[in-house]
Amino acid sequence: MVRQPTAGDKFSFGLWTVGWTGTDPFGGPSRPALDPWQYADKLAELGAWGITFHDNDVYAFDADAETKRQRCARLKEAADKAGLVIEMVTTNTFSHPVFKDGGLTSNDRGVRRFGLRKILQAVDLAAEVGATTFVMWGGREGSEYDGSKDLYAAFERYKEGLDTVAGYIKSRGYDLRIGLEPKPNEPRGDIFLPTVGHALALIAQLEHGDIVGLNPETGHEQMANLNYTHALAQGLWSGKLFHIDLNGQRGLKYDQDLVFGHGDLVSAFFTVDLLENGFPGYPDGPRYTGPRHFDYKPSRTEHLDGVWESARANMATYLMLADKARAFRADPRVREAMTYSGVYDLAEPTLNPGESVADFLATDDGFDPAKAAERDFGFVRLQQLALEHLIG
Amino acid sequence: MVRQPTAGDKFSFGLWTVGWTGTDPFGGPSRPALDPWQYADKLAELGAWGITFHDNDVYAFDADAETKRQRCARLKEAADKAGLVIEMVTTNTFSHPVFKDGGLTSNDRGVRRFGLRKILQAVDLAAEVGATTFVMWGGREGSEYDGSKDLYAAFERYKEGLDTVAGYIKSRGYDLRIGLEPKPNEPRGDIFLPTVGHALALIAQLEHGDIVGLNPETGHEQMANLNYTHALAQGLWSGKLFHIDLNGQRGLKYDQDLVFGHGDLVSAFFTVDLLENGFPGYPDGPRYTGPRHFDYKPSRTEHLDGVWESARANMATYLMLADKARAFRADPRVREAMTYSGVYDLAEPTLNPGESVADFLATDDGFDPAKAAERDFGFVRLQQLALEHLIG
Amino acid sequence: MVRQPTAGDKFSFGLWTVGWTGTDPFGGPSRPALDPWQYADKLAELGAWGITFHDNDVYAFDADAETKRQRCARLKEAADKAGLVIEMVTTNTFSHPVFKDGGLTSNDRGVRRFGLRKILQAVDLAAEVGATTFVMWGGREGSEYDGSKDLYAAFERYKEGLDTVAGYIKSRGYDLRIGLEPKPNEPRGDIFLPTVGHALALIAQLEHGDIVGLNPETGHEQMANLNYTHALAQGLWSGKLFHIDLNGQRGLKYDQDLVFGHGDLVSAFFTVDLLENGFPGYPDGPRYTGPRHFDYKPSRTEHLDGVWESARANMATYLMLADKARAFRADPRVREAMTYSGVYDLAEPTLNPGESVADFLATDDGFDPAKAAERDFGFVRLQQLALEHLIG
Amino acid sequence: MVRQPTAGDKFSFGLWTVGWTGTDPFGGPSRPALDPWQYADKLAELGAWGITFHDNDVYAFDADAETKRQRCARLKEAADKAGLVIEMVTTNTFSHPVFKDGGLTSNDRGVRRFGLRKILQAVDLAAEVGATTFVMWGGREGSEYDGSKDLYAAFERYKEGLDTVAGYIKSRGYDLRIGLEPKPNEPRGDIFLPTVGHALALIAQLEHGDIVGLNPETGHEQMANLNYTHALAQGLWSGKLFHIDLNGQRGLKYDQDLVFGHGDLVSAFFTVDLLENGFPGYPDGPRYTGPRHFDYKPSRTEHLDGVWESARANMATYLMLADKARAFRADPRVREAMTYSGVYDLAEPTLNPGESVADFLATDDGFDPAKAAERDFGFVRLQQLALEHLIG
Repeated sequence: MVRQPTAGDKFSFGLWTVGWTGTDPFGGPSRPALDPWQYADKLAELGAWGITFHDNDVYAFDADAETKRQRCARLKEAADKAGLVIEMVTTNTFSHPVFKDGGLTSNDRGVRRFGLRKILQAVDLAAEVGATTFVMWGGREGSEYDGSKDLYAAFERYKEGLDTVAGYIKSRGYDLRIGLEPKPNEPRGDIFLPTVGHALALIAQLEHGDIVGLNPETGHEQMANLNYTHALAQGLWSGKLFHIDLNGQRGLKYDQDLVFGHGDLVSAFFTVDLLENGFPGYPDGPRYTGPRHFDYKPSRTEHLDGVWESARANMATYLMLADKARAFRADPRVREAMTYSGVYDLAEPTLNPGESVADFLATDDGFDPAKAAERDFGFVRLQQLALEHLIG
Repeated sequence: MVRQPTAGDKFSFGLWTVGWTGTDPFGGPSRPALDPWQYADKLAELGAWGITFHDNDVYAFDADAETKRQRCARLKEAADKAGLVIEMVTTNTFSHPVFKDGGLTSNDRGVRRFGLRKILQAVDLAAEVGATTFVMWGGREGSEYDGSKDLYAAFERYKEGLDTVAGYIKSRGYDLRIGLEPKPNEPRGDIFLPTVGHALALIAQLEHGDIVGLNPETGHEQMANLNYTHALAQGLWSGKLFHIDLNGQRGLKYDQDLVFGHGDLVSAFFTVDLLENGFPGYPDGPRYTGPRHFDYKPSRTEHLDGVWESARANMATYLMLADKARAFRADPRVREAMTYSGVYDLAEPTLNPGESVADFLATDDGFDPAKAAERDFGFVRLQQLALEHLIG
Repeated sequence: MVRQPTAGDKFSFGLWTVGWTGTDPFGGPSRPALDPWQYADKLAELGAWGITFHDNDVYAFDADAETKRQRCARLKEAADKAGLVIEMVTTNTFSHPVFKDGGLTSNDRGVRRFGLRKILQAVDLAAEVGATTFVMWGGREGSEYDGSKDLYAAFERYKEGLDTVAGYIKSRGYDLRIGLEPKPNEPRGDIFLPTVGHALALIAQLEHGDIVGLNPETGHEQMANLNYTHALAQGLWSGKLFHIDLNGQRGLKYDQDLVFGHGDLVSAFFTVDLLENGFPGYPDGPRYTGPRHFDYKPSRTEHLDGVWESARANMATYLMLADKARAFRADPRVREAMTYSGVYDLAEPTLNPGESVADFLATDDGFDPAKAAERDFGFVRLQQLALEHLIG
Repeated sequence: MVRQPTAGDKFSFGLWTVGWTGTDPFGGPSRPALDPWQYADKLAELGAWGITFHDNDVYAFDADAETKRQRCARLKEAADKAGLVIEMVTTNTFSHPVFKDGGLTSNDRGVRRFGLRKILQAVDLAAEVGATTFVMWGGREGSEYDGSKDLYAAFERYKEGLDTVAGYIKSRGYDLRIGLEPKPNEPRGDIFLPTVGHALALIAQLEHGDIVGLNPETGHEQMANLNYTHALAQGLWSGKLFHIDLNGQRGLKYDQDLVFGHGDLVSAFFTVDLLENGFPGYPDGPRYTGPRHFDYKPSRTEHLDGVWESARANMATYLMLADKARAFRADPRVREAMTYSGVYDLAEPTLNPGESVADFLATDDGFDPAKAAERDFGFVRLQQLALEHLIG
C-alpha cells in the first residue's frame, strides 16, 4: 500500500481537473459540476496540499463584481479551513468565443485589449488569494493557416502582453512569478509557443523576463514528440522552472490529460527522479522545489467515484515513483553502472582549468579514435537497472 | 516551363546531398560515389550558386594532412572555375563510431576533446575556403535513455563547446557566423536541441551568442510535429535566422530529406512566401537574405540521372512557389481578404501610444464581448485564396 | 475562376459539418445552430448534389416519436424541393453520456442493447428517406486502458452488432449498404477499428459481410500516420470502397476536419487522381463511382459567412484538382515518364501465363542483379511532373 | 533478481539482432561482426530456446552454392549442439540495391522474378533447418510518391507472390506457415502492408490464405500510432497470430528496435498479460503458444558486452512482466474491479439466446439512458491497480 500524501509532498490540483464534467468534441457532460469549494474540501481530504484555478473556474465569464467577490471569498474560506494553499491562479482566455483567435495575439485589437484586461484582473485576484505563481497558457494564441497571421506581429504582441503583465506585477509589488505553459497544438492547429524551448526563447526577449519562467506540462511536450524530462532539465539549467503540470499522454494524438504515470511510465520515473534527486553530477546543484501540480482529466467514463479515485491515483503514483527513484540512486550497482557509463564524467569541463584554445589546439592528447570507438557505454544495462528498480 | 536558376537566386546544395549513395538502415549503396569536384561541376551546370560541405565530404576521417590540403584545394579550384560560392562549411561529428555518444556532449571526455578539436579545425577550413556560415548539427548529442546522461552537464558542455568555437572564430577574426541546426531525434532517440526554440534558448545563455544563430531545416521541425514557417518567423523575430535548410518530409517518421515541396506543399508555399515577401504588416521589416540551401537526399530508387533530376526539382519548385507567392501578395482580392481577416491589424500595439497600464485599466473601451465574438475572421476564405493562387 | 459545381459532380455534405457550432474541448459554440433544412437549402444553392445526417442532427436524442417524424418529414421535403439527394444516413452513438464506453461494445450490456436498437431505428430512417449507404462510425468503441476491455469479446460484440444490422437490412429488403468508418483515436484513446485495414479484416469475418464495406476518411487514416490514397486503393482492390469522407488534416494531432485540400495537398491531388482516373494499368478496371462526400468542420474562427465559404472551398478545390489530374494523365511526357518508371509494368503478372512454380524455378532468366540494381526508376522526376501540373 | 530463462520460456532471437553492428543512416559500424554460430552459442548460454535468421545473415547475397551449404550446415550443427531450435527463417529482399523498389512489387518484372526465386529458395532452406514459421517482411514493398505505383497492380502482385510461396509450401509438404510482418514506413515512405489490419485484409483475399498469418512487431504497430496489444488481440480473434516480434519503441520516429520494455512499459505489461493469461472472459479461449521472439537492436553506443547485456535484458523484462501479470490476474481486488468495470460482461452476447431481431425490437428493456449514463466504469481505478502491481 502507498502511504497517504501529506502537505510536505506539495501536491496540488487544478479545480478544472476534478471539475471537468466530460464534455469533449464528440459528446456532452457525463457527470455533474460541483461548486468550487466542494472540490477543494474533497482534495484536502485526499491529502492534497494546494489548489489552483482559472478565474472562470470560480465565477462565470459574465458574473457581476459582487458575485465574483462572493465566490472567491467563499473558495478562499474553504481553502483556509481545509488547510489548502492556493498556490497558483490563471486566466481563462480560451473558452469564450470572443477569444476564438486568441487573447493577446488576436487579429482583433479590441479583443486584445479586452484579453489583456481580463488577465490583469486575474493577476489582482491571484495576489489577493495568496498565489505565488500566475500561469499563462495561450491556448488560442495560434493559427490553423499560415496566411492568417502576421507572424512577426504575433511575437511582438505576445511580448507586449507578457511585458505588460510582468510589469504590472512588479509595479504592484506582488509576490508573483509568471509561468508560461507551452503546447504545440489543440485547440489551434499550431500554437505560438509550442514547446519549452520556444517559451524560453521568447522569455529571453522580454523586458521583464526576470519574473517570467515556465510551467511545462508532461503531455504538451510529448504532443511535440519530445522528451519531457529533457525539457525540465533545460528549464532548470536556464533558471526558469517555476512550476510544473504533471499528467499522462499516450503518443501523438489529442490532449489526453491522463493520470500521471498512466502515459509513458518510464519517462514518468525519470521525471520524478529529476524532481526528487536532481542531477547526478551536481549533488548541490539546481533543484525544483515548487508544487507537484497535476493537470489531468478524470476519464469521461468515470462518475464522481472515479473522479476521486483518479485524483488519488496521481498522488499514489508519484509517491511510488519517488520511492523507486530514491532506491535507484542509492543502489551501489547503479552508482557503479553510472560511473561505467560516464554519467558523472560529463560534469567535468572539456577544457582543462585555465586551458586556452591555443594551448588546447597545440596539445596532443594521444587520443586514438579507433580505440576510443570500442568503448562499451553500458547504457542499456543502466536502463535495465532502472527498469529492475521500477518493476523488479 | 520553369526558368533556369541564376546566381541571383542564391541556390546552394550540400555535397552530401547529391553525393548520398543510398545507404540506409536496411540496405547498402544504390549508386556510386563521385569525387566532390564532380558534384560541384554538375551543380553549377544546373544553375546553383553555391555549395556547402562537411570536412569528411571532401576527405576521409583519417586522411593525412597533405591529402586534406590537396583535396580541399582541388575542390576550391573547381568551385572557383565553375563560379560557385562555398557559402557554408560544417563538421562531421556523427559518422565515425568514436562519436557514437556525441562530440561535444559525449560521456567520454577524451571524445569531447577530440570532437572539439575536429570542429575547430573545420572552422579554419571554413574560413580558408571563404565560407561565411559554419553550421553545427549535433546529431549524436543526445540519448536513448533518460538515465544515461546528466542533463544539466549536457547543457553545460554544449555551452562550453559552442562558446569555445564562437570565441575562437572571434579571436581569429574570421568572417563567420555559427548556425545551429536543431533536430528532435534520429540518429539518437532524443537529441538535445530538438527544435528552433530550444536552440534559441541555448543561444540566449551563451557568452558569444552574438555570432551564434540558427540553421533550421524543414523536415527537422516537422519531425517535432511543428510548423516550419512559424519556426523561421520566430528565428527572424529573434534576429537569429542565419541560414536555412530546405527539404521535404511527409509526416512523423524517419528523416526523409525529400525534394523541397515534395513534402507538405502548402507549408512550402508559405515558407517561400515568408522568405521572398517578408511579413505583411512590416513592408520594411526583417527579411532573410541568405542562401536558399537545399539539404535533401535523392531517393535511393534513383541512379545518377535521377540525382540530377532531383537537384533540378528543388530549384524549379522554389522558383514556381516564389512566382505564386508574389502573385498572391500582389492580388487586390488577397489584400482585401487580409484586411478583412485582421492580418495587418496585428502589427498595431495593443496599448495606445503612451498609454500606461493604469490608464488602460481605467479606460472603458465600450467593448461588447458577445458582439465581438460574432466576428467572421474569414481565415478559410483567405486560405482558399492562397490555394487558388497555388493550384488555380 | 473555378466553375460552379453541378449534380453530376456528386458532392454531398453532412449536416453536422456546416452545422458544427464550434464547441471544442476548450470552448463553447462560436456561432448559432440553424435548423437542418436551412443547411440543406443553402448547400443546394452552393451546388451540392446530396446531404447526409446522423439521426440526432435532425431531432434531439430524447425527442418523442411525433417530433422525430415531423422533423424528418420537413427535412425530406426541403431536400426534395431543393433537388438534393439524401444519400447517406448514420446514427449518433457517441454524444450522449450513456455511450461513454461505446454502443456496440460497451462493457454494459444494457447499453449495448440500447445502442443496437438506436442503430436499427436509424436504418429504418435511412431506408425511409431513400439513402443508399448507412455509415457506422464507432467513435466510442474503444478504450483508454488496455485492461478495461476483454479484447476478444470486443471483436465478438462488434461482429454480433454488425451482423445483426446487416442481417436486418437484408431481412427488410432495404437497398442499403453499410460503410464502416475507421479512426485510430479520439474521442477514445484507442478505437477498435483504427484503420481501413482493420475494418476490412473485421468485414472478412462477418456472416453478412457482402453488404458491409468502407467509408474511409482522409484525416482518420492520416491520424494513423498512413497514406489515405493507399487506403482507398486497398479498399477498391477488395471491392469494398462503398463511400468516402473527404477532408484535410495537418499531421498527427487532434482530428482537425479541415477543408479538403487544406491539409496535405499533394496527397489530395493523388486521391482525386485515383477517384477520377482510376489505376493507370487498368483502364477498364475498378472505379469509385459513389458520392464525393465532405466530412469537415468550418474553423471555429468563422461565423456563418465563413461556414458557407468553407463549404464552397471543398468543392472548388476538388474541381481544381480533378482538372489538374486529368491534364496530368493526358500529358504525353507523363505517360513517357510512367513507362520509364515501370508504372504500367506492375500490372503484368510475375509468372508467365501457365508457368508452374517448378518451371519457374527451373528457368534461368539470365538476370544480373548488379546490373538491374543500376536502373534509374525516375520516381522523383515523375513526382516533379505531378508537381508541375499541380502548381505550374 | 530475475531467474535464468529456460527452454520452456520459448525465447528466441534473430541473428541479425545481436548481430547488428551499428550502421545507421548517419554512421558506420560501431562493433565487429561475428560468425553466425558465435551468436548462436552465446544466445544459448544466456538462456534462449531458439534462433531465427534471414538467408543473408548466414551467407552473403552472392555466395556460391557450396558456401551457402557449408555455412548453413555449420550453423545448424552449432544450434543442435547448443540445444537451440531454429524456429523461423526469413528472406532478405531489402538490402541489395536490386530490391530498391521492392521484391514482389518492384516496378521491374525482372526484379520481381528474381525476388520470388530468392524467397522460394529461402523456403527450402527454412524447411531444411526445421523451421516452422517463414516470415515475410516486405520492407521495400512500397513507395515514396503516390504516382510511382499502380496501387491496384501492387496488391495483385503481392497476392500473386504470397499465393505462389504458400502454394509452393503446400506442394512440397513443408510443415511451414507464413507470418506477414506489417510496418507502416521505413525504409520506404509508405509500405504496402502498414499494419496488422492491412495484412489481415490481404490474407482474406488469398487462395492459400489458410497457411498465411501474422508476425506483428511491437514497434511497427506503434509507428502507425496504434496499440500493439489491440493488434495481437485482433490477430488472435482472426486465428492468425502465428508469430510475434517483441521490442521497444518510444513514439513516432525512426524504427528504434529497443529492448522489449524499454519503450512503452505499460503497453508491454498488457502485451505480456495477453500472451501469458489470455482473455479474461474466455478462460479456455484462444491463446498464443508460439515463440517469444525478440526483434530488437542493441544500441549503437554499446560494444559486445552491451550486446549480451541487452539480449539478457529482453528476457529478464519479459519474465518480470509475466510474474507481475500473473499476480495481477490472481488478485481478488483486481477480479472485483474487473467485475465492477464490466470487463467480464462484454463476453455475454448482446442478444438473448435465440432472440430474433424482431423480438428484440419488440422488447422493452425498461432501459433508462439518463440513469445508465451515471454508471461509474471504474476504468481509472482498474488501471491504477495494474500500475500498483507493475511498480508497487
